[in-house]
Amino acid sequence: MVVKNISVLGSTGSIGVRTLDVIEKNRSRFRVIGLTANKNIDLLEVQIKKFNPRLVALMDEQKADQLKKRVKGCKVYGGLEGIVKVATSEEVDLVVLAIVGGRVLIPLIEAIRCKKDIALANKETMVMAGHIIMSLSLENGCKVIPIDSEHSAIFQCLDGKDTHYVKGIILTASGGPFLDRADLEDIKPSEAILHPNWQMGKKISIDSATLMNKGLEIIEAHHLFGVPVDKIKVVIHPQSIIHSMVEFVDGTLLAQLSQPDMQIPISYALTYPERIQNTVPELNMLEIGKLSFREPDLSRFPALGLAITSAHIGGSMPVVLNATDEVAVEKFLGGEIRFQEIPILIKKVMDKHQVIENPGLSEILEIDKWARLEAEKGL
Amino acid sequence: MVVKNISVLGSTGSIGVRTLDVIEKNRSRFRVIGLTANKNIDLLEVQIKKFNPRLVALMDEQKADQLKKRVKGCKVYGGLEGIVKVATSEEVDLVVLAIVGGRVLIPLIEAIRCKKDIALANKETMVMAGHIIMSLSLENGCKVIPIDSEHSAIFQCLDGKDTHYVKGIILTASGGPFLDRADLEDIKPSEAILHPNWQMGKKISIDSATLMNKGLEIIEAHHLFGVPVDKIKVVIHPQSIIHSMVEFVDGTLLAQLSQPDMQIPISYALTYPERIQNTVPELNMLEIGKLSFREPDLSRFPALGLAITSAHIGGSMPVVLNATDEVAVEKFLGGEIRFQEIPILIKKVMDKHQVIENPGLSEILEIDKWARLEAEKGL
Repeated sequence: MVVKNISVLGSTGSIGVRTLDVIEKNRSRFRVIGLTANKNIDLLEVQIKKFNPRLVALMDEQKADQLKKRVKGCKVYGGLEGIVKVATSEEVDLVVLAIVGGRVLIPLIEAIRCKKDIALANKETMVMAGHIIMSLSLENGCKVIPIDSEHSAIFQCLDGKDTHYVKGIILTASGGPFLDRADLEDIKPSEAILHPNWQMGKKISIDSATLMNKGLEIIEAHHLFGVPVDKIKVVIHPQSIIHSMVEFVDGTLLAQLSQPDMQIPISYALTYPERIQNTVPELNMLEIGKLSFREPDLSRFPALGLAITSAHIGGSMPVVLNATDEVAVEKFLGGEIRFQEIPILIKKVMDKHQVIENPGLSEILEIDKWARLEAEKGL
Repeated sequence: MVVKNISVLGSTGSIGVRTLDVIEKNRSRFRVIGLTANKNIDLLEVQIKKFNPRLVALMDEQKADQLKKRVKGCKVYGGLEGIVKVATSEEVDLVVLAIVGGRVLIPLIEAIRCKKDIALANKETMVMAGHIIMSLSLENGCKVIPIDSEHSAIFQCLDGKDTHYVKGIILTASGGPFLDRADLEDIKPSEAILHPNWQMGKKISIDSATLMNKGLEIIEAHHLFGVPVDKIKVVIHPQSIIHSMVEFVDGTLLAQLSQPDMQIPISYALTYPERIQNTVPELNMLEIGKLSFREPDLSRFPALGLAITSAHIGGSMPVVLNATDEVAVEKFLGGEIRFQEIPILIKKVMDKHQVIENPGLSEILEIDKWARLEAEKGL
């Protein structure tokens, strides 16, 4: 068995920790070359002792200096350039991108330029610059394997199949914690981060509650699989067992099902095209009993509608959607705006934006910055 | 596009007619080389005029003589050797095996020996001699593509994937017309042939009502996909939307879904690995609303239990199961035995059988004959 050399960007986050769990259970398959974190040096120190990476980086430069004094046997970098170093080091085969948000776009692009395969758990970068990421990965002959459960499902259904025969994609959505809550006023951040089926980070949990997450996934799927936006449908499936489906021209749908446990898409992205045994309980269809489906209610969850609008407009609009959503979610978590004001703030900034078709990387970064500043102004 | 030359064995039956429908809608892809029927010369004559096959055969020799006088431009054969001629003619690329029952085993074996790809709508031959059929097809480098909706589903889920990672198979079953009927006494043949979701021939409709059909499918799947019998589970799924699922070692299930319309598996078997557009209405998950799953009740449907027992015993026992079932179904349709006596008759003959491990073709044909004679004796 060839050992795969891996760098995990965002190793102390929710997906990063689970990625290292999978690696730990399969030590003979993987070697950890690099780890990066934002500023959680305590957990990072524990991970360093366990996995002996050669390269480590912290986004926070001060924390990087602190860590240097604590650990031996590895090089510790600080800042975005440090993250890039860990992502692009020559011996790395696969980069796991487990950092949330658009700030990781540069390390991602640099990793692809260095011909690294990517296990992608970050959707914001695809929303911002999917056209650039996909054409670069094609150019450099490297794979982009999604970790997002929905996109992993689609990737698995398509595996080896000619996309020429794809008619559409059905993205399933749990509907989030407020699917059946009559009143969406006065929702507290502590309620919104409690997802019914998945344990996830804060940002993605709030995005699931507003259904923005599903909107970002439409844009992500569009780029990853080259399927037109209007061929991507969202269906509410509260059990989170079918993780998405691909529709073919002959009337067939292929679906991927599993327990809602990120171990499965993570291990698949790490081992593709192989599969390894996981410690997830067996999916017993008899115990599950039924799977249900219904339409998303865009009037109650306008963030999804905004994302669909932005996907149809295309060009630089998804950059604005994404940046503003990140700021709006932070403002909601910080108590500055209410739950239902998240889409209002996003719409306000989208309305101000002059769309650029097919934006380049520097334009994307500029628009991202502009949108964040606009969003910071608040309602 | 390379035109595929096709012989349809059993062209006047339920699957045969639908196969020709698909071919008619895609004339540029296919050429009909041969057609065969049992004795329905009226329909066969219509089909000959429409598709201009070069070769025709009727199982019934007298009917063959009658047809000869009616049609021009094609060679008309009679009897089993005639069927073999149509199946093995040099120019044929793909043989569609749409004849029900074990009597078509010889033409199937001969077609494989002549390196024809097989689109298989007959499960009895696989139950009788799956080990021989699969090893012969491997030897001759020809494909056996299932048309049965369940096996087509499994084939589609596995497509291109290493079966090394397969953990098991979940065969879905509609449960047939009597799934929720309290009293299975006094069932009339006219009730038993009414399947809730599928339009099918009589034999397979009765087998669906007793759940024997699902039992035969376990044995078929075991041979087709090389999966051990104890890794194949049956789940009742009354909506007949998920046609079967494959379970992988990592906890993933892949499922194939479609409207319950044989056009889909037929066209897939004809065009594999390509797909063509069908005239089946789109599968709308929102309209379907829910998919449900429950355990089969072996006490109410003992035929399924007998099939599972026979699959576990293996060797020549499935030959006896299959032959006796064919006779028992005929006896039921003819009013000789009652619905609930079908499994009783099968068990009676199974109990008498001395199992031969790994039977050869002549032994299979002998045991088949013996079991039919035993079954003919009745209860």
